[in-house]
Amino acid sequence: MALIVQKYGGTSVGSVDRIEKVAEKLIHSKQQAHDLVVVVSAMSGETNRLMLLANEIDANPVPRELDVLLSTGEQVTIALLCMALEKRGFPARSYTGTQVQILTDSAHNKARIKDIGDANIRQDLDQGRIIVVAGFQGVDDKGNITTLGRGGSDTTAVALAAALQADECQIYTDVDGVYTTDPKMVPEARRLERVTFEEMLELASLGSKVLQIRAVEFAGKYNVPLRVLSSFEDGPGTLITYEEENMEEALISGIAFNRDEAKLTIVGVPDQPGIASMILEPISDANVEVDMIVQNIAADSTTDFTFTVHRNDYTRAMDILKKISADLQAREVTGDNKIVKISLVGVGMRSHAGIASKMFRTLAAEAINIRMISTSEIKISVVVDEKYLELGVRALHEAFELEKA
Amino acid sequence: MALIVQKYGGTSVGSVDRIEKVAEKLIHSKQQAHDLVVVVSAMSGETNRLMLLANEIDANPVPRELDVLLSTGEQVTIALLCMALEKRGFPARSYTGTQVQILTDSAHNKARIKDIGDANIRQDLDQGRIIVVAGFQGVDDKGNITTLGRGGSDTTAVALAAALQADECQIYTDVDGVYTTDPKMVPEARRLERVTFEEMLELASLGSKVLQIRAVEFAGKYNVPLRVLSSFEDGPGTLITYEEENMEEALISGIAFNRDEAKLTIVGVPDQPGIASMILEPISDANVEVDMIVQNIAADSTTDFTFTVHRNDYTRAMDILKKISADLQAREVTGDNKIVKISLVGVGMRSHAGIASKMFRTLAAEAINIRMISTSEIKISVVVDEKYLELGVRALHEAFELEKA
Repeated sequence: MALIVQKYGGTSVGSVDRIEKVAEKLIHSKQQAHDLVVVVSAMSGETNRLMLLANEIDANPVPRELDVLLSTGEQVTIALLCMALEKRGFPARSYTGTQVQILTDSAHNKARIKDIGDANIRQDLDQGRIIVVAGFQGVDDKGNITTLGRGGSDTTAVALAAALQADECQIYTDVDGVYTTDPKMVPEARRLERVTFEEMLELASLGSKVLQIRAVEFAGKYNVPLRVLSSFEDGPGTLITYEEENMEEALISGIAFNRDEAKLTIVGVPDQPGIASMILEPISDANVEVDMIVQNIAADSTTDFTFTVHRNDYTRAMDILKKISADLQAREVTGDNKIVKISLVGVGMRSHAGIASKMFRTLAAEAINIRMISTSEIKISVVVDEKYLELGVRALHEAFELEKA
Repeated sequence: MALIVQKYGGTSVGSVDRIEKVAEKLIHSKQQAHDLVVVVSAMSGETNRLMLLANEIDANPVPRELDVLLSTGEQVTIALLCMALEKRGFPARSYTGTQVQILTDSAHNKARIKDIGDANIRQDLDQGRIIVVAGFQGVDDKGNITTLGRGGSDTTAVALAAALQADECQIYTDVDGVYTTDPKMVPEARRLERVTFEEMLELASLGSKVLQIRAVEFAGKYNVPLRVLSSFEDGPGTLITYEEENMEEALISGIAFNRDEAKLTIVGVPDQPGIASMILEPISDANVEVDMIVQNIAADSTTDFTFTVHRNDYTRAMDILKKISADLQAREVTGDNKIVKISLVGVGMRSHAGIASKMFRTLAAEAINIRMISTSEIKISVVVDEKYLELGVRALHEAFELEKA
């Protein structure tokens, strides 16, 4: 008898009708003799509705009370889902974060899980009940309601799976798995049977927003097998797990990309220690997040320093750079907000040379000029002109034969 | 430093705007150096909205999950009210039923309070915080969320006032107090400064629906001074308390009435023991609530048995009576659904004779025929034809000089 933790997001429980469909899916799983723990989000739109009420009162409502308010969203869903299960004759029991004892720290609106009590849930499971848990919320050691921050329901599911030593944690979403790249851009894109935690982290952070990154980290840390599936159609989805001996021998798992990049370069600054932090500190102080950072060693005693930011932050970052360029005796400041990033991701590339050169050759064959390069253990990213995004991704997908299993 | 418990109902917190107004009122009370514990209901309409969601799934949703669902209504209000207080610089803290530990039995949807934990609230009061508690909800000894049934927020307030030994429990409503009768019917109707718990029970059950009857019983039992005030205008309201030596020497406190009555008579049944229960049992089995019951001793060996029901139940009750009349060898069954009940209420009548005769004389002077009479220690009720309702109430109000303090 396998113990499965399933998680359904806001869209999957966005109406009474959809909640009834989730109930049917759960009953199907239950009939396959699984012990079931289900984590649900607030019905889509509900969290925003509550947030608007709060903001009518205060643009920055007190964090403790915001958690009291927002946590009602998931509480509504767990009650309705249990009603739908009980109506169909399947004993169910709802749990708020407080009732489970999802113990968190006291950082309201962005709490982190410290411990999970499992005694009550295990007792209910032993009695054949389906357990329905409110995602996104917990309780601190003083009994205050906390929330894990938006999208935290994935983390709730993974943490519960870890605490209960579940056989699998299944995240139901509006896609049927993790793909080699965006199928909207490349029709040949293929659903991956498996992907490693590390690859998933790179794919998620680079824009394939299937799972909350914290949940993937958590699953990796506690070695919880994680599966992404579709709420709306049947299928095996994609299993996210540790690298195994018998895993697919692919060099590259997928191609991620990011449309919203902008790059800024400060040209001809003295090539001396501390220069990078002198540039990045004021950027960071302005709460601008920096993605890629590249610095080349220069021929003369100066160097060029380039980094990328979200396109929305481009103007602000540029203003800051211009202000500090005099102090840094920079020759000039340049930038471009019509760029994109394309990344090859795969644990296979750790042990195989030649991936990078094949990537650059493929792009060159399509006359795509590479403006920046950055690499990690399992990822190579290039920045190219915006107009080459689709061409570059398609050419790479074909060159690395990602359509083949 | 007085400790005051205040309660605001759904209409008083029916919008963000009104919640902000309640916050202003609380701050005014706080500035008068009162320790404040506030009980709030769900925003008006919210409980119905949640109930509709539940009924989309199941006409009879599982009671435990209905409580999980409905309790979110008050949780939203406590969070918003605390945000409004904190924005104005007044430290506040919200409490769900679980967080207070309003311990109830496990009778979901109609739970009764067994005990109230006050340690956390006292600690927060000592730190100068305004305490905002979700009405209508509690928790059983296993941590399940319970609700006290509709309108139970009044009971929450009274129970908290009793547990905290508050100096006064103030119930804010949309009326500014308890009146000698309905001011819509009698413009001279006067707000009572004081009324006893017993009078209030009779006035409430007879249709002056200002307070939940269970809350009044509770307040009487624990001797909590209860005050009814208006949420929307200033004023002293009406204090509900035990009879005191120096209380107003009025014989009659008020005139209650009920428009929705219907009466049924089974004529000429054998005057023998057990006949009353043979008539009322099938009525009660059909969930028809009976109000007044009158039986006269008859001259021959038969008697007439009359009772009143809510007008909506008239046809059903009549069908039942007709069915059983043969078994009871009754002569006939008659009824009238165009009647009303008028009641004089006052603890003063306990020790004063002549109230009844003055009442009957007053009605006779207006040529109002009395169809039924029923009395209790502090109440005399008569049933008259519907058309005489306003005339009867006005004549009695004048005869007993209720407009004078």
